[in-house]
Amino acid sequence: MTNSQDLITRCIHTIQMLAVDTVEQARSGHPGLPLEAAAIAYVLWTRYLQYNPADPAWPDRDRLVLSAGHGSALLYTMLHLTGYDLSLDELRRFRQWDSRTPGHPEHGLTPGVETTTGPLGQGLGNAVGLALARAHLTACYPHCPLDHHTVVIVSDGDMMEGVGYEAASLAGHLRLPRLIAIYLDNHITIDGGTDLSFSDDVAARYASFGWRVLRMDGTDVADIDRALGDAWSQPNRPILVIARTHLGWGSPKQDTSAAHGEPLGAEALRATKEHLGWPLEPSFLVPDDVRTHFRWAGDRGQQAQAAWQSRWNAYAAAYPQEAARFQAEWAGDLPPGWDADLPSFAPDKPIATRVAGGQIMNAIAPRLPALIGGSADLAASNRTALKDLGNIRPGDYAGRNIHFGIREHAMGAILNGLALHGGLIPFGATFLVFSDYMRPSIRLAAMMGLRVIYVFTHDSIGLGEDGPTHQPVEQLATLRAIPNLTVIRPADANETVVAWRMALERRAGPTALALTRQGVPVFDRSRLAPAAGLARGAYILADAAGTPDVILIATGSEVSVALGARELLAAEGIQARVVSMPSWGLFDAQPPAYRDGVLPPGVLARVAVEAGVSQGWHRYVGLAGDVVGLDRFGASAPYQTLMREFGFTPEHVAARARTVLGR
Amino acid sequence: MTNSQDLITRCIHTIQMLAVDTVEQARSGHPGLPLEAAAIAYVLWTRYLQYNPADPAWPDRDRLVLSAGHGSALLYTMLHLTGYDLSLDELRRFRQWDSRTPGHPEHGLTPGVETTTGPLGQGLGNAVGLALARAHLTACYPHCPLDHHTVVIVSDGDMMEGVGYEAASLAGHLRLPRLIAIYLDNHITIDGGTDLSFSDDVAARYASFGWRVLRMDGTDVADIDRALGDAWSQPNRPILVIARTHLGWGSPKQDTSAAHGEPLGAEALRATKEHLGWPLEPSFLVPDDVRTHFRWAGDRGQQAQAAWQSRWNAYAAAYPQEAARFQAEWAGDLPPGWDADLPSFAPDKPIATRVAGGQIMNAIAPRLPALIGGSADLAASNRTALKDLGNIRPGDYAGRNIHFGIREHAMGAILNGLALHGGLIPFGATFLVFSDYMRPSIRLAAMMGLRVIYVFTHDSIGLGEDGPTHQPVEQLATLRAIPNLTVIRPADANETVVAWRMALERRAGPTALALTRQGVPVFDRSRLAPAAGLARGAYILADAAGTPDVILIATGSEVSVALGARELLAAEGIQARVVSMPSWGLFDAQPPAYRDGVLPPGVLARVAVEAGVSQGWHRYVGLAGDVVGLDRFGASAPYQTLMREFGFTPEHVAARARTVLGR
Repeated sequence: MTNSQDLITRCIHTIQMLAVDTVEQARSGHPGLPLEAAAIAYVLWTRYLQYNPADPAWPDRDRLVLSAGHGSALLYTMLHLTGYDLSLDELRRFRQWDSRTPGHPEHGLTPGVETTTGPLGQGLGNAVGLALARAHLTACYPHCPLDHHTVVIVSDGDMMEGVGYEAASLAGHLRLPRLIAIYLDNHITIDGGTDLSFSDDVAARYASFGWRVLRMDGTDVADIDRALGDAWSQPNRPILVIARTHLGWGSPKQDTSAAHGEPLGAEALRATKEHLGWPLEPSFLVPDDVRTHFRWAGDRGQQAQAAWQSRWNAYAAAYPQEAARFQAEWAGDLPPGWDADLPSFAPDKPIATRVAGGQIMNAIAPRLPALIGGSADLAASNRTALKDLGNIRPGDYAGRNIHFGIREHAMGAILNGLALHGGLIPFGATFLVFSDYMRPSIRLAAMMGLRVIYVFTHDSIGLGEDGPTHQPVEQLATLRAIPNLTVIRPADANETVVAWRMALERRAGPTALALTRQGVPVFDRSRLAPAAGLARGAYILADAAGTPDVILIATGSEVSVALGARELLAAEGIQARVVSMPSWGLFDAQPPAYRDGVLPPGVLARVAVEAGVSQGWHRYVGLAGDVVGLDRFGASAPYQTLMREFGFTPEHVAARARTVLGR
Repeated sequence: MTNSQDLITRCIHTIQMLAVDTVEQARSGHPGLPLEAAAIAYVLWTRYLQYNPADPAWPDRDRLVLSAGHGSALLYTMLHLTGYDLSLDELRRFRQWDSRTPGHPEHGLTPGVETTTGPLGQGLGNAVGLALARAHLTACYPHCPLDHHTVVIVSDGDMMEGVGYEAASLAGHLRLPRLIAIYLDNHITIDGGTDLSFSDDVAARYASFGWRVLRMDGTDVADIDRALGDAWSQPNRPILVIARTHLGWGSPKQDTSAAHGEPLGAEALRATKEHLGWPLEPSFLVPDDVRTHFRWAGDRGQQAQAAWQSRWNAYAAAYPQEAARFQAEWAGDLPPGWDADLPSFAPDKPIATRVAGGQIMNAIAPRLPALIGGSADLAASNRTALKDLGNIRPGDYAGRNIHFGIREHAMGAILNGLALHGGLIPFGATFLVFSDYMRPSIRLAAMMGLRVIYVFTHDSIGLGEDGPTHQPVEQLATLRAIPNLTVIRPADANETVVAWRMALERRAGPTALALTRQGVPVFDRSRLAPAAGLARGAYILADAAGTPDVILIATGSEVSVALGARELLAAEGIQARVVSMPSWGLFDAQPPAYRDGVLPPGVLARVAVEAGVSQGWHRYVGLAGDVVGLDRFGASAPYQTLMREFGFTPEHVAARARTVLGR
């Protein structure tokens, strides 16, 4: 393979011009980063990254994360050039309806896109998760060939966002191996020079986290090669490579924020092509020898995967049981009998659903090795510690418990990386109110359809004395508002068992469990409907004789309040049905006949009861119904006092039901 | 005043024991931090802080922020001892219903509490805002006596949360003067030793941000005095004082996480008192000479305020106009004629509401010097730059534009600090979807009732090609779910004028404006109802002749779609009313007669139209109505395509209206 300086230069120019033409064609997009990072991309994709365009799902491929997702045109260009199933026609349809080249990279839509990026800082967190996943699986399967690296390309935004700091801090603490971040240090942000708002000594900062820091000239192929070679040869720590680069490199807008987020325009495009000695026409030009060179790089990956397959086969022959288990986990299957030890709770004494949750997790975890996760420094409160299954520690990644530290947002982004890697089912825990700290990551998990499980405890004013700063009131509503996130708030310990089952069996997206701090009754299922009804989102827990006069709908700790109200009403001759409704999302997915059976269209006297904002409940209670909710922030007091003062008592619910009935 | 070592020791023990008794009495709370930080608190409150317990609102008081809000018992103890209006009885009612001593400090509830803290990292961000407010006002009023410091006490959690990193990075960049952070470096987190999850070299990290870093032994009064004296004498940079401390200092649980979050318990309490040579009984003991000593410290502040008042009087005499303006701004009054230049937009061509918003802000800003703010690196897109009014820069704080950098969360926390300081009306801007990055700060602004204005542009799929990562769909719903946050999504440029008026005139809480990226028609108000109707949250924009057959309710860019549907329906003889509903919150606050006038209970055929999740709309359309919403993530394409594909067209809305009508 010839590899002359001239060919290299033309390869780099091809990357630049293809990306710029892509943006220009769309009349929308970000040319600055592709121009800037083309030389780095060239060296990465032709000399370092291990990938096979013919099999983007190869388990041992290197994971390349473009955290600076606005540079999508660069990524699409590289995927096209190296031979992924992404045609020039798709580049021409950049940012158009139904194309595979959306404005920001979307995992699942485009082959070779490892994660959905764009919201800054997220990709860096994903990369930490990806590297951690490999480290953990390697520790658990020491003979399995898993040698890949995780490489993440970050921009100033990733450096400034808090989630990026958090993720880098944890990665440094853990001394994560085979994680390489390449920082495009271009001295420009959208508003202007970074001197407007940013003067961190990034090298010193990353060193303070425990990273090794290298530098390179991001426009000099030899220097890039030297630095990346150095990075690849230092496997025992995360590496930051600071690349001095120039936004819009080679264009008249170089080193200005004007190069960032809009097409160059005809004039600057012409000037750029002239400056680079590139033909003005045709656009989307890929010279034959350039195409051959990149395809060679891509084809090399096919050989690499074949070699890996031999190693895998040898491994599978030597360790057949291990290999079979690995494959099943990689496929996302739950092992047979995973649920054999699931507990069943007797109705003899109250138990907080977080406590039940902890018992459930510990019953599952020994039989489900793929389950890994932890808490943002609240393990004892969340009850999520997996007993006797070890901690992830610096240099020792075999444990199943991750101490995320007080870093909810990085936790969210790292969970996404763990799920994206394959082979793992990650969970993360904090107080429900602090789900606010990690919403951008939850949103991306939902958008990507990742199997991530959130354990959010202390799920209402029922947490008591810590007061309004710690009491969620709007969080149930706001999590339910995220498309493709299943939110489940079980009413008692046995519903919590079913909730965990639903969460684990769901493959197409994340699940958030909302669990109580305070003890709640375990319902006597010999008198009430089985907890299995949770699977349908809402079910008749206790019915009226005949057509109900009124339907009381409740979730979580308020279900027992509704049951109490039902008894009070019954004593007055009012027949109330109690519906336990742990999940709007699961209920909405049921067929109309089931939904109408639970909430008959003819019964409009309905009262919803939930210790949170009423937003959204009118979809179920209508204009004729009522919501006993909490449309204000909470207060600091013992929880029994709060529940009473805020109206979550059988007496108050019964009174509101009477009002709805006009009595 | 005697000041013997013995008295000092007993003062420190009084702080410790009073706080611990407070927690013990409540059977709930955090004794670890008050024990740990008592010596630091002693030195701060008796030798450094400038405050007057008789006037907690003294403008030139030092601002003390307990970012580690779980240490509230320490703060309440100090407020009590130094003579604030906070009795021992209130300490005894710690964490009880209706007390002034809630679990975490709540601004507005307890005199001397500068900000509500508990969610970690927020207080550090608030402190940066407080210090920036002073720096800005000093630059604008160079002769006005404003000499106070901002002191923030931070724990490991504040160091680990991303918002804390972001805020510290910006503070270092700006070289903010008179900002002192005291870091309780106790090597313990809730889950155990910090070595579980945290090994940042904090000193190096803060140095990398541009802070000066000092160290002290947090249990040694002389060393604390030395370090704080040093910090106070270096006014030209933010200072981090790393205090080596011991969680639960002096108790048997010292240096363990068990000391953190629950009462010591009778046995450990007894052991602690014995260890410190403190009487076991009575609890809540304050020896007379200790009380006298602290009261002296408090009284000294009264003299300090008197001296300041003299300086103020001299200033007011020398610069009467300036002083009058300062006072009016301090009172939160909008100056007469502030709205004289508010534009009115003619219905001749479409204009994006973000563009209108920029013109409105620039019409207001010259007449409203209190208005200060900026964007998280999207000023050009948000259109929030205040022209010719300068930038806040390192060492130069007179500008009105703040470049927050790509740090939405710190922006939120800093805005809260700016509002808390007094004299300013802060605003912050980003894309609506990135409001997710700053929700914890927005929630606290709402909880505290701060006048903060958020400018959230690119408010729907109408932003087009950037795709689902950048397209809000659930954010309108989730912001509306926050109690006491007013959310306004104006339909056109003239509604945007009224929205800004509402935001500025609101004193009791924050307002979020949701503005379009894309152009939207300016309605011809000669044919439609006046935009002033926005003030009531929803109003009849175009009515039916007589009782409407159907009501179309819409917000923002979808109002013009509803108007189009109305015309289509009219051509078929269906009388539709169009209600513009820019703010649920403002509408819900109207009297029932007004609400019933807009949405007559007798007209149940209703269709809501909004390019976002449907959650919450059934409160207005009921079970018989329908919602044309977007209950999925968006897509990357030109916005006209998206609006069409997702059904936001007059034709589709008309069809849905027909269905609701059963036609």
